[in-house]
Amino acid sequence: MLYEMSFKNKNVLITGGLGFIGSNLAIKLVELGAKVTLIDSMIPEYGGNLENIAVIKEKITLNFSDVRDDYSFKFLIKNQDYLFNLAGQTSHLDSMTNPFQDLEINAKSQLSILEACRKHNPNVKIVFASTRQLYGKPQYLPVDESHPIIPVDVNGINKMAGESYHLLYNAVYGINTTVLRLTNTYGPRLRVKDARQTFLGIWIRKCMENQPFLIYGDGKQLRDYNFVDDVVDAFLLAATSQKSQGQIYNLGDSNPISLNTTAAILVEENKGGTYSHIPFPQDRKNIDIGDFYGDFKKIHDHLGWYPKVNFRKGISETLAYYRSNIQAYI
Amino acid sequence: MLYEMSFKNKNVLITGGLGFIGSNLAIKLVELGAKVTLIDSMIPEYGGNLENIAVIKEKITLNFSDVRDDYSFKFLIKNQDYLFNLAGQTSHLDSMTNPFQDLEINAKSQLSILEACRKHNPNVKIVFASTRQLYGKPQYLPVDESHPIIPVDVNGINKMAGESYHLLYNAVYGINTTVLRLTNTYGPRLRVKDARQTFLGIWIRKCMENQPFLIYGDGKQLRDYNFVDDVVDAFLLAATSQKSQGQIYNLGDSNPISLNTTAAILVEENKGGTYSHIPFPQDRKNIDIGDFYGDFKKIHDHLGWYPKVNFRKGISETLAYYRSNIQAYI
Repeated sequence: MLYEMSFKNKNVLITGGLGFIGSNLAIKLVELGAKVTLIDSMIPEYGGNLENIAVIKEKITLNFSDVRDDYSFKFLIKNQDYLFNLAGQTSHLDSMTNPFQDLEINAKSQLSILEACRKHNPNVKIVFASTRQLYGKPQYLPVDESHPIIPVDVNGINKMAGESYHLLYNAVYGINTTVLRLTNTYGPRLRVKDARQTFLGIWIRKCMENQPFLIYGDGKQLRDYNFVDDVVDAFLLAATSQKSQGQIYNLGDSNPISLNTTAAILVEENKGGTYSHIPFPQDRKNIDIGDFYGDFKKIHDHLGWYPKVNFRKGISETLAYYRSNIQAYI
Repeated sequence: MLYEMSFKNKNVLITGGLGFIGSNLAIKLVELGAKVTLIDSMIPEYGGNLENIAVIKEKITLNFSDVRDDYSFKFLIKNQDYLFNLAGQTSHLDSMTNPFQDLEINAKSQLSILEACRKHNPNVKIVFASTRQLYGKPQYLPVDESHPIIPVDVNGINKMAGESYHLLYNAVYGINTTVLRLTNTYGPRLRVKDARQTFLGIWIRKCMENQPFLIYGDGKQLRDYNFVDDVVDAFLLAATSQKSQGQIYNLGDSNPISLNTTAAILVEENKGGTYSHIPFPQDRKNIDIGDFYGDFKKIHDHLGWYPKVNFRKGISETLAYYRSNIQAYI
């Protein structure tokens, strides 16, 4: 790792810090000696969960607030060396039923975070969690960063705006920002109550509870998955590289697998479980994107990143985590 | 014209209806026999001006309200056959100094307008006024609709979101929307108080007042201009075509001219006036895009549109309008 020593005694702020990826990042940063502050709104439909940070709770500063609350953010951003900006509404369906909340969190709050950085801490390094959802239905595979941006849901549009503000504040004001476009991330601390973070969440839970889970369509759709430790690695590389300023990087995996294979591996690693195929419900069908896998050559070339944990191993670790902790997640 | 008979006795709503393009469109629609309602917020920095609709004021319904006011909009959208959605914040500089107002008007209000249409009038035909500003600094010329979208200011990002919502509501809910990406539009009723709509506004005014106007940089930057009657024509064609649903169309002109030539023509047609070159101010430099002209082949192929009024003739008509009406515009 290139960043092992970079975070020692550094002040680090993570928005969405009690969420799935934020908490895994926080655990790693504490291990690296950083002084970590976590912001989380604890909106019940999102990923924030106290259990996520149980192992570091004495070693961090917790701040319960919403990124829409710009006064508290202005106060918290001062003197931070790094901002990992992960607060977001991730549910595609929720963005269609409540588009204004999605807009406020994924677009307006991002602008307000950047304005606060510009005014109160212009030297902070920011890494923003964006999503491959921006690309919409792929026109070619694997999808690289030059692929047209044609979002298929309100979430994709608002995340596109949130991402663009980050690049603009770099171009115009010189704020050092980097954008990571994440694909399906999974691992310990994933929300498994429902499918709001990814469908894998609810699959894992149902599988462990020995209830059948559902595959929409024929199950041949391809997806790429990243284990959360690999995603944390990408955030830390992006934060510490000189080359990453103003860049957009896809994450991804070069071994995409079908939903059917995904389900089969999950059941095998769980040593039990059943699933069945059903036709797409209309609301899902409207925003489905078919096959997807991302081209991560750029981040590999610039930062040396590549996914190290294959899906079978990652799922096995994930299941192990939930076997000990499931009560805090249901 | 293909649309001559299409608007007779039709209910038409125009947001930003007292503005530059909105009022010219309203005048044409009244001539075609439409029942026209205009919504305008009369925000002083925008284009709304009662003088703009002096010639039709007895023949239209005027409604002073802001598109951020969603209750009144819900009421007004009912029973409309067409919505020309032109309300917008157009100033690039203002979007940088007041990014939240720009976001509310150019992004959030657009979502709220579309939600109102979906719930209360899903059969309305919508034509949305977008901007070539979305493209940012051209990667090639002329710029066609496939050019990457890399906005260089907050206005471009928020307009991008506003535009994307329109396309999404067509794709997901079947609302019949069309997007026009406008370039520099000029003509009678342009805001000439300042450069908030286009730099041409302030040039025209200074020139008529015999004060020197300023060219930033060396004046060799190319621009394309559309006379407002041609732009009105594009809106009416888009509204009545079957082919336009869910489409994005550039407007533009195939004879781009430099800022120096623009200034020379303006002075010639005004029979007087002076200008000088100054270096770019930093705030302008940050968001300048260099040469720009658009490729309008797609709207020509689909709808038969092309610009009919050349710049010299258009400027001459514009100057004639302001010679009679300048008091209402300064």
